[in-house]
Amino acid sequence: MTPLRDCMPRWCLVLAGLALSAAAAANDGGLYRDVEDYRLRHESQIVAELAALASVRSVASDRAGLAAAADLLVTRLRERGFEATQWSVPGAAPLVFGTLNGSEAKRTVVFYAHYDGQPVTPSQWSSDPFVPNLHSALPATPANQVNWKSAQPVLDREWRLFGRAVADDKASIVAFLAAFDALKAAGRKPSVNVKVVWEGEEEAGSAHLAQFLRDHQAQLASDLWLIGDGPVHQSGRAMLYFGARGVLGLRLTVYGPIKALHDGHYGNWVPNPAALAAQLIAQMRASDGTILIPGVSEGVRALTPEERSAIAQLPSVDDSLKREFGIGAAEGHEGLALSLMRPALNVRGLRSGQVGDASANAIPTDAEISIDFRLVPDQTPQRVRTAVERFLSSAGWTLVADAPDEAARLAHPRLLRVEWESGYPALRSSMSSGAARAVISSETRAARGPVALVPMIGASVPLYLFAEIFHQPVIGLPIVNYDDNQHAANENLRLGNLWDGIQTYAFMLADLDW
Amino acid sequence: MTPLRDCMPRWCLVLAGLALSAAAAANDGGLYRDVEDYRLRHESQIVAELAALASVRSVASDRAGLAAAADLLVTRLRERGFEATQWSVPGAAPLVFGTLNGSEAKRTVVFYAHYDGQPVTPSQWSSDPFVPNLHSALPATPANQVNWKSAQPVLDREWRLFGRAVADDKASIVAFLAAFDALKAAGRKPSVNVKVVWEGEEEAGSAHLAQFLRDHQAQLASDLWLIGDGPVHQSGRAMLYFGARGVLGLRLTVYGPIKALHDGHYGNWVPNPAALAAQLIAQMRASDGTILIPGVSEGVRALTPEERSAIAQLPSVDDSLKREFGIGAAEGHEGLALSLMRPALNVRGLRSGQVGDASANAIPTDAEISIDFRLVPDQTPQRVRTAVERFLSSAGWTLVADAPDEAARLAHPRLLRVEWESGYPALRSSMSSGAARAVISSETRAARGPVALVPMIGASVPLYLFAEIFHQPVIGLPIVNYDDNQHAANENLRLGNLWDGIQTYAFMLADLDW
Repeated sequence: MTPLRDCMPRWCLVLAGLALSAAAAANDGGLYRDVEDYRLRHESQIVAELAALASVRSVASDRAGLAAAADLLVTRLRERGFEATQWSVPGAAPLVFGTLNGSEAKRTVVFYAHYDGQPVTPSQWSSDPFVPNLHSALPATPANQVNWKSAQPVLDREWRLFGRAVADDKASIVAFLAAFDALKAAGRKPSVNVKVVWEGEEEAGSAHLAQFLRDHQAQLASDLWLIGDGPVHQSGRAMLYFGARGVLGLRLTVYGPIKALHDGHYGNWVPNPAALAAQLIAQMRASDGTILIPGVSEGVRALTPEERSAIAQLPSVDDSLKREFGIGAAEGHEGLALSLMRPALNVRGLRSGQVGDASANAIPTDAEISIDFRLVPDQTPQRVRTAVERFLSSAGWTLVADAPDEAARLAHPRLLRVEWESGYPALRSSMSSGAARAVISSETRAARGPVALVPMIGASVPLYLFAEIFHQPVIGLPIVNYDDNQHAANENLRLGNLWDGIQTYAFMLADLDW
Repeated sequence: MTPLRDCMPRWCLVLAGLALSAAAAANDGGLYRDVEDYRLRHESQIVAELAALASVRSVASDRAGLAAAADLLVTRLRERGFEATQWSVPGAAPLVFGTLNGSEAKRTVVFYAHYDGQPVTPSQWSSDPFVPNLHSALPATPANQVNWKSAQPVLDREWRLFGRAVADDKASIVAFLAAFDALKAAGRKPSVNVKVVWEGEEEAGSAHLAQFLRDHQAQLASDLWLIGDGPVHQSGRAMLYFGARGVLGLRLTVYGPIKALHDGHYGNWVPNPAALAAQLIAQMRASDGTILIPGVSEGVRALTPEERSAIAQLPSVDDSLKREFGIGAAEGHEGLALSLMRPALNVRGLRSGQVGDASANAIPTDAEISIDFRLVPDQTPQRVRTAVERFLSSAGWTLVADAPDEAARLAHPRLLRVEWESGYPALRSSMSSGAARAVISSETRAARGPVALVPMIGASVPLYLFAEIFHQPVIGLPIVNYDDNQHAANENLRLGNLWDGIQTYAFMLADLDW
């Protein structure tokens, strides 16, 4: 292996970039070239495999679509020699479990991804979200459309495949399968024992994941979990992540009069719920995003020097993202990467009365606030919830779980409906465990260049659950483009990311060793 | 006349209640009884007259309806011996002007009302807003409906006529006409010279009223304007008002990223427009309604002792309104009547992102705020506008009139679109002028009891315009029930208010003298 193993942890990350990127091509025993050769000969076939999987309507509202996707994945694994099955729990989409027998490697790795996609609003899409189509550029107009079945290899790395779940996460599944095929074609054996967990309800909140994992704890025994979810760094650089923020959703409703009242006749006397909601938000969150609620940020674990060092080495994308997003300045001054290491209070939505031409001279009847908290170690949803409720009570609000009746309204001047969504904590795990160093090393060779090492992504993935149940390293292994419109209309995958993703999976399967 | 004339102004109001209510019946020379006799014999006919007028679709979107209403009113005036005509200004609904010749009284009074109604959303109404119908109680269900054509007199005072503009202001017009008929039937002559101004675009903002008034200043010469608009006191007591708050509308738009962004990946770094909008509102308005913007309340004229005394004598309706509106406490501690004497900043609406089940984990692209300011003497719209813009600039906002382009977004971190609606100032006029004292005196006799004397109503009526152009007293003469749903669906008029309103107009026509 590499000199990486013997260095002090905080310097390893530097060395990974310096030493390995230069040496990568020479160090992989021809693996990269073998995989590339295979891919170049099978590009259309790989895209077709992804398109076939993405045409299955595996979204939460379509039980038959979820079942069909699970069936298809079991078939795909068995075709490749896996022992594959579906696990079921009442009310849950099936979980596809696969294991490759006959390998006697020292280490076992579980490759996780999810095969369900976010719900779709077809009217917002340029074309049917379940009829995947390829375009030479953004946006997905007819003029940009290309037919990969008749296209001559090599397909352009910048072409994009559109369809629900093509990026999130079906690309990871197909990259895994294609990598496996490439290894087989080159006569290479995996360097680790391989298990596969493909979940079917991640986009619906992974409500049964804990139960699946606990019910099958022995079968899932491993030395490492690799999580094939999320996009790579905005710089386009390959990326690994070692944690993810947790999340906790909150809906607040402030009550005004039971009917909208003329604000000339009653303004200054009848409480204005829109103004109260605004004051409430201003009390909870400073303009740089700092959460002002006492106790919410209690127990926030400081970044380690290793984590700080990794963040300092991330390519800066702040200026280009500002241009892309049309923003003149960021909320704080610490830069994007560091800002995501803090807890966040995001206002997702506000609604009270009417605005624009529809606005009437009226005091609204209520105001609704939609919030999510992004949690960091060692915050817990329960402690955040307790701190928020204590704060709201101390600010003079009477908290209720349901819409209040007239008696409650009259008895309590400031009524606030508080509805918590389910949530889960964050995880930030070691970047210098043996497994972590091996993954960094293999991914650096797969990427043939430096890898963005992110201690914790800002978005929420329930990494904590794998860590909590299995006490083994959990590392995020994203492959898709950051501008993939995941969760939105016109989700898309850049072909270059799929090609690079196949290399990533090939190296995790055949190069990984510790 | 009465002892009222000779007392000191601030005591007059007290005496009006004590002395006149007891003496009223004896002092009116049989006027009240004559009018009541006439009304009892013509109840169905009067309701039919109002229903006929309210079935004409005189709303801003219906030019033909406005023209038909104006024609009908000219006819109604001519039938009663008035010289009546329509004034026109390009683009404006016609203004109906009537004058009763042959009278040689010392004083001339102009009776103002508007014949246009607010726009309707028929789907929100219990029945067609232009097919007036009578109900025995709220709500306007079929079970409560009564047919006044076959109903035996006396019609119940609590019955309500439903239809657009039945209360706001067609009731005032019909009460005026019925009062005139009652006087004629009793062989009584008006005690003042009578002019009528019935406007057709009050609900559209009276855009041409100033021009109408200035163009016909000589014809409109008078000693007093009586404004037949607005509801009586919530206590049900007869009411006169001597002023009205002004108004100034403002729409603000705060800009976030040009597309909604995952708040996990970008929260704490990409500015959150919903949070910024909330902070902006909290900076502008305290929870008791106090406006925090420096300079906005500059030049606010203190209440006179006379005005304070009048307010102190108003029946308290705070507790019953709290029950009716389902509010546990008012914003401030000074009570409804006094709170309306202050400038107000009303948040009419707030919108950003999505709330409830539709909420996504996203940073919204913008946040819209809809505000109206209610102005008091001697604030002016221009000074308020200047103070607000100065405040917003000093708070770090770059103010723009239109939606910003990308270059503007990048150049200015905090962009705020500022759209002002047209506005006008407040008026608070003397409650102890000769005309004021005469009106109070006559109305006290008409009401056979104490009259609520309101220095300034909280809602906005452009009283300032009459005062500014004619330099004569302007007094509000409301007759309709406060719970008439004006401007909303199911607008309605309580018959008792119409009957009392006929007395009010009869006394203003035949008892008024100073």
